[in-house]
Amino acid sequence: MNCNTPTDVTFSFTGFAQRGGRTDHHADGWGIAFFEDRGLRHFVDHQPACESPVAELIRRYPIQSRNVIAHIRKATQGEVNLQNCHPFVRELWGRYWVFAHNGDLKDFRPRLHGNFHPVGNTDSEHAFCWLMQELAKSHAGVPSIEELTLTLRELAPQLASHGTFNFMLSNGQALWAHASTNLWYVERRHPFVTAQLSDEDLEIDFAQHTTPTDRVAVVVTTPLTTNETWTQFAPSELHVFVDGQRSVG
Amino acid sequence: MNCNTPTDVTFSFTGFAQRGGRTDHHADGWGIAFFEDRGLRHFVDHQPACESPVAELIRRYPIQSRNVIAHIRKATQGEVNLQNCHPFVRELWGRYWVFAHNGDLKDFRPRLHGNFHPVGNTDSEHAFCWLMQELAKSHAGVPSIEELTLTLRELAPQLASHGTFNFMLSNGQALWAHASTNLWYVERRHPFVTAQLSDEDLEIDFAQHTTPTDRVAVVVTTPLTTNETWTQFAPSELHVFVDGQRSVG
Repeated sequence: MNCNTPTDVTFSFTGFAQRGGRTDHHADGWGIAFFEDRGLRHFVDHQPACESPVAELIRRYPIQSRNVIAHIRKATQGEVNLQNCHPFVRELWGRYWVFAHNGDLKDFRPRLHGNFHPVGNTDSEHAFCWLMQELAKSHAGVPSIEELTLTLRELAPQLASHGTFNFMLSNGQALWAHASTNLWYVERRHPFVTAQLSDEDLEIDFAQHTTPTDRVAVVVTTPLTTNETWTQFAPSELHVFVDGQRSVG
Repeated sequence: MNCNTPTDVTFSFTGFAQRGGRTDHHADGWGIAFFEDRGLRHFVDHQPACESPVAELIRRYPIQSRNVIAHIRKATQGEVNLQNCHPFVRELWGRYWVFAHNGDLKDFRPRLHGNFHPVGNTDSEHAFCWLMQELAKSHAGVPSIEELTLTLRELAPQLASHGTFNFMLSNGQALWAHASTNLWYVERRHPFVTAQLSDEDLEIDFAQHTTPTDRVAVVVTTPLTTNETWTQFAPSELHVFVDGQRSVG
């Protein structure tokens, strides 16, 4: 989720968490990270999201954030344990970077000669460390959002050629999302509608919880609501979301 | 806390959290990190620990860990916000490193020419980044606990000469603690006693929650219980705790 004003994620997370073992088979752990300014709240748990006491906290406690990345895991590589749960976090140039991956990179372990090394043993964390290493080489300090987008558009295909590589990345200023196969986004803005969750019998009238200037973009692998207009990413597309909307350029 | 078997911290944390605004003036945020194998659960909040919904979760949810570092903040440098809450986390050599500082380093901003840069603006995170930079220069990969202790005994005085520098550091294998002024530890082992919290009217009979082989070391700036034998660190002492006891050497 990427927004122009701090927004809580309790509605979307309620549906999303159901997929962690109840309405879907992604039951091998989960995680979520919320930026607050430059700071980060990072929660991971190797229990299924639908049963996790930490997920219950997130559902009940409206953490306000402008950039949120959440993930539910279906283990393809790496055991079910805490260090293999997404999203992963690293610091670069005095900023935290948060990454989550949906997909599977086969037999791909690029050499890590820089300062980023995986703690767990997933293909995803390895790919993230490689991305961070290459970003560190490409820029001397935090580049502009536009420059970062250009660099990521060069780097992503090098990973995506080895398998399925839907990913999201945020440094708290923007949300970058890359599709191999399945990625969708919705931009919520005035006039806000009543949305109906796909995974649970719950609806929300966003108009009651927003002001007319609010903008919220949500990017997912499968649409979360049944009555909103979700746009599918084309294969190999990388978009950047800033202030709650897709940034064109 | 450092233990030889995964142990929950709910008893100690209940007393500790009271100092975050109720029995003590450390009300400018708090944080706690739990290692689970190489993985990490990291919680920070800029609300006082005694009022924080996340602290309430920690009090109620018995997370089992062998290495835990918790901190309640009294802001001396840097604003009250999420990025300035301890403990801080960085990755080095494919391991997470967790650091918390009690004290104040005056006018000391050593040059950071390596790969670790503060996200917030505290003296503490700056000192941590410098420590990580110097560790990275001193060893090619994760060194043994003994080697790391030797390196830290060389590095700590360089920071401590600039102010008060009580700190704790863990990579999930051991807990290093350095005292400038106030640091105490207790080693709990068989036969376990009933302990009485200093900060809340609560006692626990550890014998009912342990097995005879369990060992737990707890290091604090002020003793948490009134009826256990706490040992004070001498000024400038750095100790390492492994498997629930102080490691001599």
